[in-house]
Amino acid sequence: VDVMDARMAVENLPERPADSHKGTYGTCLIAAGSVNYCGAALLAARAAYRMGTGLVRVGVPGSIYDTLAGQLPEATWLILPHTSGVINSEAAKVVWKNLERVNALLIGPGWGLENETKEFLEDLLNLQKGKGNASPLGFVPEEHELKNASRKLPALVIDADGLKLLAQIENWQDKIQTAVLTPHPGEMAVMSGLSIAKIQADREAIAREYAQRWGHVLVLKGAMTIVANPAGEVAIIPMATSALATAGTGDVLAGMITGLIAQGLEPYTAAKTAAWLHARAGIKAARQLGSEASVMAGDVIAQLPQVLNEISS
Amino acid sequence: VDVMDARMAVENLPERPADSHKGTYGTCLIAAGSVNYCGAALLAARAAYRMGTGLVRVGVPGSIYDTLAGQLPEATWLILPHTSGVINSEAAKVVWKNLERVNALLIGPGWGLENETKEFLEDLLNLQKGKGNASPLGFVPEEHELKNASRKLPALVIDADGLKLLAQIENWQDKIQTAVLTPHPGEMAVMSGLSIAKIQADREAIAREYAQRWGHVLVLKGAMTIVANPAGEVAIIPMATSALATAGTGDVLAGMITGLIAQGLEPYTAAKTAAWLHARAGIKAARQLGSEASVMAGDVIAQLPQVLNEISS
Amino acid sequence: VDVMDARMAVENLPERPADSHKGTYGTCLIAAGSVNYCGAALLAARAAYRMGTGLVRVGVPGSIYDTLAGQLPEATWLILPHTSGVINSEAAKVVWKNLERVNALLIGPGWGLENETKEFLEDLLNLQKGKGNASPLGFVPEEHELKNASRKLPALVIDADGLKLLAQIENWQDKIQTAVLTPHPGEMAVMSGLSIAKIQADREAIAREYAQRWGHVLVLKGAMTIVANPAGEVAIIPMATSALATAGTGDVLAGMITGLIAQGLEPYTAAKTAAWLHARAGIKAARQLGSEASVMAGDVIAQLPQVLNEISS
Amino acid sequence: VDVMDARMAVENLPERPADSHKGTYGTCLIAAGSVNYCGAALLAARAAYRMGTGLVRVGVPGSIYDTLAGQLPEATWLILPHTSGVINSEAAKVVWKNLERVNALLIGPGWGLENETKEFLEDLLNLQKGKGNASPLGFVPEEHELKNASRKLPALVIDADGLKLLAQIENWQDKIQTAVLTPHPGEMAVMSGLSIAKIQADREAIAREYAQRWGHVLVLKGAMTIVANPAGEVAIIPMATSALATAGTGDVLAGMITGLIAQGLEPYTAAKTAAWLHARAGIKAARQLGSEASVMAGDVIAQLPQVLNEISS
Repeated sequence: VDVMDARMAVENLPERPADSHKGTYGTCLIAAGSVNYCGAALLAARAAYRMGTGLVRVGVPGSIYDTLAGQLPEATWLILPHTSGVINSEAAKVVWKNLERVNALLIGPGWGLENETKEFLEDLLNLQKGKGNASPLGFVPEEHELKNASRKLPALVIDADGLKLLAQIENWQDKIQTAVLTPHPGEMAVMSGLSIAKIQADREAIAREYAQRWGHVLVLKGAMTIVANPAGEVAIIPMATSALATAGTGDVLAGMITGLIAQGLEPYTAAKTAAWLHARAGIKAARQLGSEASVMAGDVIAQLPQVLNEISS
Repeated sequence: VDVMDARMAVENLPERPADSHKGTYGTCLIAAGSVNYCGAALLAARAAYRMGTGLVRVGVPGSIYDTLAGQLPEATWLILPHTSGVINSEAAKVVWKNLERVNALLIGPGWGLENETKEFLEDLLNLQKGKGNASPLGFVPEEHELKNASRKLPALVIDADGLKLLAQIENWQDKIQTAVLTPHPGEMAVMSGLSIAKIQADREAIAREYAQRWGHVLVLKGAMTIVANPAGEVAIIPMATSALATAGTGDVLAGMITGLIAQGLEPYTAAKTAAWLHARAGIKAARQLGSEASVMAGDVIAQLPQVLNEISS
Repeated sequence: VDVMDARMAVENLPERPADSHKGTYGTCLIAAGSVNYCGAALLAARAAYRMGTGLVRVGVPGSIYDTLAGQLPEATWLILPHTSGVINSEAAKVVWKNLERVNALLIGPGWGLENETKEFLEDLLNLQKGKGNASPLGFVPEEHELKNASRKLPALVIDADGLKLLAQIENWQDKIQTAVLTPHPGEMAVMSGLSIAKIQADREAIAREYAQRWGHVLVLKGAMTIVANPAGEVAIIPMATSALATAGTGDVLAGMITGLIAQGLEPYTAAKTAAWLHARAGIKAARQLGSEASVMAGDVIAQLPQVLNEISS
Repeated sequence: VDVMDARMAVENLPERPADSHKGTYGTCLIAAGSVNYCGAALLAARAAYRMGTGLVRVGVPGSIYDTLAGQLPEATWLILPHTSGVINSEAAKVVWKNLERVNALLIGPGWGLENETKEFLEDLLNLQKGKGNASPLGFVPEEHELKNASRKLPALVIDADGLKLLAQIENWQDKIQTAVLTPHPGEMAVMSGLSIAKIQADREAIAREYAQRWGHVLVLKGAMTIVANPAGEVAIIPMATSALATAGTGDVLAGMITGLIAQGLEPYTAAKTAAWLHARAGIKAARQLGSEASVMAGDVIAQLPQVLNEISS
């Protein structure tokens, strides 16, 4: 078991040559949010930028565009088809049509658990093989408009409600390339069928076992977050703080991981590096504010530049 | 009479164990706002987060969602049915359908005094016993969709226009479990039938009397805020500052109390602790800005982390 | 001629007794903004709050409510009837219906010069005597709904496009109670029929003459702002800075004057005090930012608390 | 070749006399943004203000007004006709109708590449000679409403997608007065037909050649930005930093150049001065945040006042 530390984190971070441009640092797409959980998209996107991503695109249900888009002028936006404010299956082809140059795709934050969004997830995955069950209507692109050759999703990060919906899809493990899954213990329980108590009783072993069984990188969140990969490697983040025990910090972590993958990090490396930086930023936010209780997710993002500074000097 | 001080406040605050998660710190629901008073929802919600609440849900009339939701990405949102921008009776069942895991419910800030919202309040209370007068339409859940067994509202905090509307309901005292009521002298006059002069002439005695008579925790706001409970206990907040004499500071206090109850504090303890922290934050905001006149409600919220810091060290 | 200084400014400021409440510091209503000039309402409202006003209500054309209201949660809002995004004559009765407890009314910032808004201004003034030419439709209150007894507008501050439209109304001088008019030299030229060159050649004499002729307090803006009243008194603000030569600083000054009148200052006193504080805040903003060129109107507002602090100590 | 330095930059900056007003510092119009790239308009506008422009007008597709306008209260706004969120040809006359007092016009940021917007660009240019192909509908002004005498666009800055669309117009070089074109190497490749590799192999020579061939000021962005004018003069910005390798920094630079031209700088002088200040602000933002990776475009704008301060002292 690797115990992550500052030196490891800094060694994993991408180089920043002086003669680089935004294309050097990749593009990520974040398909997130719903009418009830709209802020998740903002938190994840801002976190991806603070990690150095060159361009962050945010795909949201059209009905929440107005309240969000002006809040983050550095982002570009994709309007996703929706039903009553939740992403619906028509959105799958819209995402597929906009994957050019996308190096990492984050799905799940703020989705909710509506059936329409589950259909979106199914279609998103099925279109990899050209056999989606989407029935395009209106402005949605037709199947033949999608590029046909070797359609493959970019590196995936799946978080939050995306995990719960994924668990409802039979053999989901085999329908995606190596992805990063970021469950907290409650979501891990839904995915694995184990009880939360059982998961928490041996977090390291459970994470290792399921990363191997499912063939994906697993980030088992909580105090002392565990990151495991399909090859059996496991890293532990040796920090625990109540500063992160507040809504939205999971969206922040998911955005950070996605942003690092977009810059070329291998998914397991990105996940353990982001998880370490995230924990440190939570602790730092509490120190800077003066209170662990008062930390909000946005405060964690705001500390990322200084965390990067500290570990580099 | 207890005279609140820093030591008492800090002793009342919830523990923050390192291995906690957002569920540890509860969920509150804030049903607030209207087209004319939309900001109240934001102020109360942000204040609840700064007090350490794990998750803050904000229920607002659908027509003000667009202007508000992007301003607080850490919150989750509930769209409430409305008539011309004020919450209407259809909203009662929407709230009831979303009370799962809600540990504290704040009602009243920014409501306005329209009849439609009074009906909402009546239905909200009546549904406790399954005999509401709501006539569900459209997307509003049917009566049978609501859980039937022992329907009970979570701990209530009632503020502002919610108090004035409550006073119009016959025997309102008996229709709610022990709640926290937070009137300023003008609202106390409407509720009690006494003149403001009479209330101000003996704030402590009046607060004690009505807390006992009504059977609820009473926060009589103003210089030297008085907090009283049905058992006859009374606490005084020994601070007075014109820094808090500005619109929206009441919404901040209501959010703070609700946030502490969501974390497990007993209502009377939450009310007197929040009132003390709120007064101290007002004084601190004036010092930090350099002027009592210039303090705005948002400045008070911004000081909460440092107030928590000061009293803990 | 009075040369305003820090001591005079501080002496004019309202007392802030510790046992005060928001009602102690008055209410102002700001009827401002249009689709092309929406930010004026925000700048004026925030400035009024920073001067200590207890409650600031903002009336805007309904079509710009969504983009503005969430930006200033401390304000309360009034939806004004509009035609294509500019205030129209139907709005006059809406304003009249909402003047209860309003101690000062600001009109003009961000209005534009459309004929519909001119009609609003005419009707607003005419309703003082019960002979408006408004033809109420839809939700607009009927004439008989307005209180009939001695209808009088609160203390008025008129700025920007409001001045240009006012100049189009015959005998406007006699249709309003003593108001504060805040023209820059270009607006003064429109109002007086003089050339800008002539006005600038003897600012003090012109301001004195027209304040007396028109019977209103006149704030002739620009380097060395002149404030004159109908009694022939004149004050000069002995400051000039390019930091204030940027869009929106006029809205800030208008909000400050209105906010001081709402707190009980006599209009002439409020105008000269606000003008002095405003100039000082502009200079201070440039110092704090490091550049006069970079100062934006919002930066001037942000310096008001420290300006109040400096002169009080 | 001039190597730009702090002394040159400061000498080029406009004087700021104490008795100036906002008219002294010009007006610029920024026609920018689309549903997918809405933030570009905000970034460019804020940057123009921070450079000292007296008034910044922002023209955006009507559908993105709500999400943007409240974010920058100092700006004034122009609603542009649009098709599905992108500027369409009807907007050309709206822009022409609003050019009075506009000293500099920025086009291109955030446009996207839709055909409707290409038609807008063509009509905007064609109306210079009175032979546009616009077919006005609805509220769009008729041809005869436009002033006929010597219709000439103000000084132009063309950026981003505006450059790619421009390249599709035959003989575009001759259809505009001397403009500032701000391509990055990818856009320069589209415009020139050269490969990116060839452009990057000899940036200085390429920039000089094409500035002369096209007859426009050329800003070839990237590490060591090159600025060239039609007379064969070339300036190099001797700075390279990955802090600027992030989305939106190009919008910031375009707004800065436009803002300096609005204040009376000659286009070539404005371009090289802005490019130098922009590079320095990027470096400064990284130092202030502690990390080059974390810099976002808004951080660069925030450093402009201090950059101006440093070089002036």
